[in-house]
Amino acid sequence: MRQAAGAPMIRVMQEFAVRPDPDDPRLTRRVAGIDQEGNAIETAVVTERPLTLFLNGREIVTMMTIGDHPNYLAVGYLLNQNMLGPDDRIAGVDYDDEIETVVVRTERETDFEDKLKKKTLTSGCAQGTVFGDLMERFDEVRLDPAAVLRTSWLYALTRKINTAPSLYLAAGAIHGCVLCEEDRPLLYMEDVGRHNAVDKIAGYMHLEGISPAGKIFYTTGRLTSEMVIKTVQMGIPILISRSGFTAWGVELARQAGLTLIGRARGRRFVALAGAERIVFDSDPRGVGDEPARLARKSSLPEGAALDDG
Amino acid sequence: MRQAAGAPMIRVMQEFAVRPDPDDPRLTRRVAGIDQEGNAIETAVVTERPLTLFLNGREIVTMMTIGDHPNYLAVGYLLNQNMLGPDDRIAGVDYDDEIETVVVRTERETDFEDKLKKKTLTSGCAQGTVFGDLMERFDEVRLDPAAVLRTSWLYALTRKINTAPSLYLAAGAIHGCVLCEEDRPLLYMEDVGRHNAVDKIAGYMHLEGISPAGKIFYTTGRLTSEMVIKTVQMGIPILISRSGFTAWGVELARQAGLTLIGRARGRRFVALAGAERIVFDSDPRGVGDEPARLARKSSLPEGAALDDG
Repeated sequence: MRQAAGAPMIRVMQEFAVRPDPDDPRLTRRVAGIDQEGNAIETAVVTERPLTLFLNGREIVTMMTIGDHPNYLAVGYLLNQNMLGPDDRIAGVDYDDEIETVVVRTERETDFEDKLKKKTLTSGCAQGTVFGDLMERFDEVRLDPAAVLRTSWLYALTRKINTAPSLYLAAGAIHGCVLCEEDRPLLYMEDVGRHNAVDKIAGYMHLEGISPAGKIFYTTGRLTSEMVIKTVQMGIPILISRSGFTAWGVELARQAGLTLIGRARGRRFVALAGAERIVFDSDPRGVGDEPARLARKSSLPEGAALDDG
Repeated sequence: MRQAAGAPMIRVMQEFAVRPDPDDPRLTRRVAGIDQEGNAIETAVVTERPLTLFLNGREIVTMMTIGDHPNYLAVGYLLNQNMLGPDDRIAGVDYDDEIETVVVRTERETDFEDKLKKKTLTSGCAQGTVFGDLMERFDEVRLDPAAVLRTSWLYALTRKINTAPSLYLAAGAIHGCVLCEEDRPLLYMEDVGRHNAVDKIAGYMHLEGISPAGKIFYTTGRLTSEMVIKTVQMGIPILISRSGFTAWGVELARQAGLTLIGRARGRRFVALAGAERIVFDSDPRGVGDEPARLARKSSLPEGAALDDG
């Protein structure tokens, strides 16, 4: 695993440098059942497996994941929870397939350990405090005011993402997140939870030295507070989803100056924050509605759906 | 708030005894934005607010919720996490709107406190252990082998649920769970997270003395391990979703003898566990596909979507 240097180099990335591998036999399983006529059928379902994350010998969390990028997931989780800071240098990431653990080691002890000790004294269950950590850097982030989103890019991105081979198209019941630049999807990660998919992208960006400058983030999931906070803390100024909004997600996006676009399907979209970054260079009437056969929702003969995280 | 007696009485419930209230002004907010043509629009988005849960003076967790049934949510969460056992008598549930807290008091200290003390010593972050608690009673549950699901009920339920007024139809980006009996939806709860919607139903059943006998559980969300575990622990033998499956959800359903039906849309469905409870009393060819205007996915002019938890 390569380690990002202190000042990450800026690399030009290929379209779909990372993309789903629906043919990987570890990621789906064939399961027998019956259909509405009572006929025996066999169908593909997505696997989920536990992955226990350690930071410097301390057990942090057990996550359920499809398991395709444990190292990126581990590092991205720690970054997005602010358990790793910008100054923490990663000395190694060790994944053990057999015991389903991943250990992230830093050069010196992170100050997360101290914070955790303090917090477990004041709060019985860490679920509440994790959220506090998540917000810690939110107010400090300055998103690039000069970034733009051309609507021609938006239409090209959603078309390319919706038609790319994916676990979603093969088995359904999975979330996708995509790091993009202009009209090019760069990293397309899927996982059973939207939070894992975004963490895998954050981990990849950190370990491979990918700058957030000029990037656009796409998600299949809802634009909740969590999604907005993570996008902002990753330093990405534009967030697009085919799903809807929550009120707190909109409020946080406005506070942070994030461009927030939802319900992006076919020619349609709605921007509820940061609309000044949008450049209308494409006539939506020329785009057409999302054809039924390309729509993520209806493209599966068995009607598999992407419904939740 | 009424307290379930030791042996809960069995009550006959009306269709939609509890249903979403999309006109409640606290649950949605009108937000200004622009559409794909650059035109100013106003759209409804679902609100989410923090709710901090205390059990006998101990802070347990802060949840994000739409906030419509804090008492049911609190009790259901504690039950589904096995922090309240069948022997724990609830002495009171106090919700304070202003400071966004809900306190559940039991007649004697629950043994959860002891367990928690032990666990915080061995595990830094409680997220992992919460899952352990969730599974604690799973193996003990015996689901009624004589329960049946007529396909005529399934088709009637999905039609009634999809066309009932809801926050989903008003604003999108929300999950629904419905407790049903034969062809009647009884309790229809929505929330920003699927886990909250199911917990609100569990809390209602406990506090109002609703037996799981003869019940059917419907969810808009995916059939993940969490959803299967909660349904089993609530003692409900049949779980239906319009969404897809994960492999571990299927495996746990088979272990527990739960009837697991997914991708239920229009005439179509797939059963991957417990299919022996299904009675095929309705010709699917007479049901027709889900009409586009009734489909949850496509019924909104703005294309709001139900995509994740």
